[in-house]
Amino acid sequence: MTFVKANEPATGNQIAAFLNLTRATIRADLAVLTMTGILDARPKVGYFYSGLEENPGGYEELRKMAVHMIMTKPTLVKKETSVYDAIVTLFLEDVGSLYVAEEARLIGLVSRKDLLKSAITGSDTRSVPIATIMTRMPNILTLQKNDSVVDAANMLVTHEIDSLPVTKSDNQIIGKISKSHIVTLFVDTMKKT
Amino acid sequence: MTFVKANEPATGNQIAAFLNLTRATIRADLAVLTMTGILDARPKVGYFYSGLEENPGGYEELRKMAVHMIMTKPTLVKKETSVYDAIVTLFLEDVGSLYVAEEARLIGLVSRKDLLKSAITGSDTRSVPIATIMTRMPNILTLQKNDSVVDAANMLVTHEIDSLPVTKSDNQIIGKISKSHIVTLFVDTMKKT
Repeated sequence: MTFVKANEPATGNQIAAFLNLTRATIRADLAVLTMTGILDARPKVGYFYSGLEENPGGYEELRKMAVHMIMTKPTLVKKETSVYDAIVTLFLEDVGSLYVAEEARLIGLVSRKDLLKSAITGSDTRSVPIATIMTRMPNILTLQKNDSVVDAANMLVTHEIDSLPVTKSDNQIIGKISKSHIVTLFVDTMKKT
Repeated sequence: MTFVKANEPATGNQIAAFLNLTRATIRADLAVLTMTGILDARPKVGYFYSGLEENPGGYEELRKMAVHMIMTKPTLVKKETSVYDAIVTLFLEDVGSLYVAEEARLIGLVSRKDLLKSAITGSDTRSVPIATIMTRMPNILTLQKNDSVVDAANMLVTHEIDSLPVTKSDNQIIGKISKSHIVTLFVDTMKKT
């Protein structure tokens, strides 16, 4: 593969010589690589590397996928926001959780369950700020943009959470990954192949 | 493939004759099938069907998977249950939605968002029955046990819902599929292969 990449177009004889094998020996391998689309064969010219990875099924592609490829912008609120306004924001933005930010840095997170718990305690949701009910840093699991999507999905199910903030080293919020992102990726992958 | 399954061991010439092609024409195809492990080749004997499906990457397996293979038991409540008790049940059972049943038949569904909406309207959550806030049949999307997991995942993201009830033809509830089930399946598939 590396040889073909570096020597396009490579003839069958050149590839055989490089591998120290006969042309006949590598015939079947070349056929497989051509039929699965990894190599392009042009008669009388030679083999070209198609750019496809060796597992065209796509698992390798999925496994290499990083969270920044599918993350979206989260809904940010301030810590002074009332529980009531947070719930309204949740409905207006149609999201499952809100990230609490201060100068674009993540300081807390409120989920639907946090809000629900607060709403049934009988306290006045309009006067209680979310700072009193949010989960606070550093007790929030976060992702870095190059973390793998598979690891993110594993964290979501292991810790039974709906979404994970993606942050830079100084807690700057750059995105979020939710169960919905993973399910969408699953559906897209199945449709595509 | 079917021919090889029925006629093991099948020689290259027999396969070619069956397909009405020359031995030379199918050589590369047989090489691909052998190298990917779908056929076993024994010198001087012939080809055997290995039992592997044609896409060893596993997508075919995922695509054939039916919802009954991964569904779990849902949490059922009665329509007289108060919004307050429903919220408490949600926390105790650690689920995202409750199915409202009458004699094991699905009549309604309440999500975290339905409960949240009810909780902030100011009405007494202890006296309001969930019958007044639930989504009612036939306005609930449901699955049958043999529906594919891929279709279920597609419905979850397209309609932005957290879970789908699995029912029999008379609305008997037999299970549920949530985004968490799909994410867990995704993680398990990636770990396994």
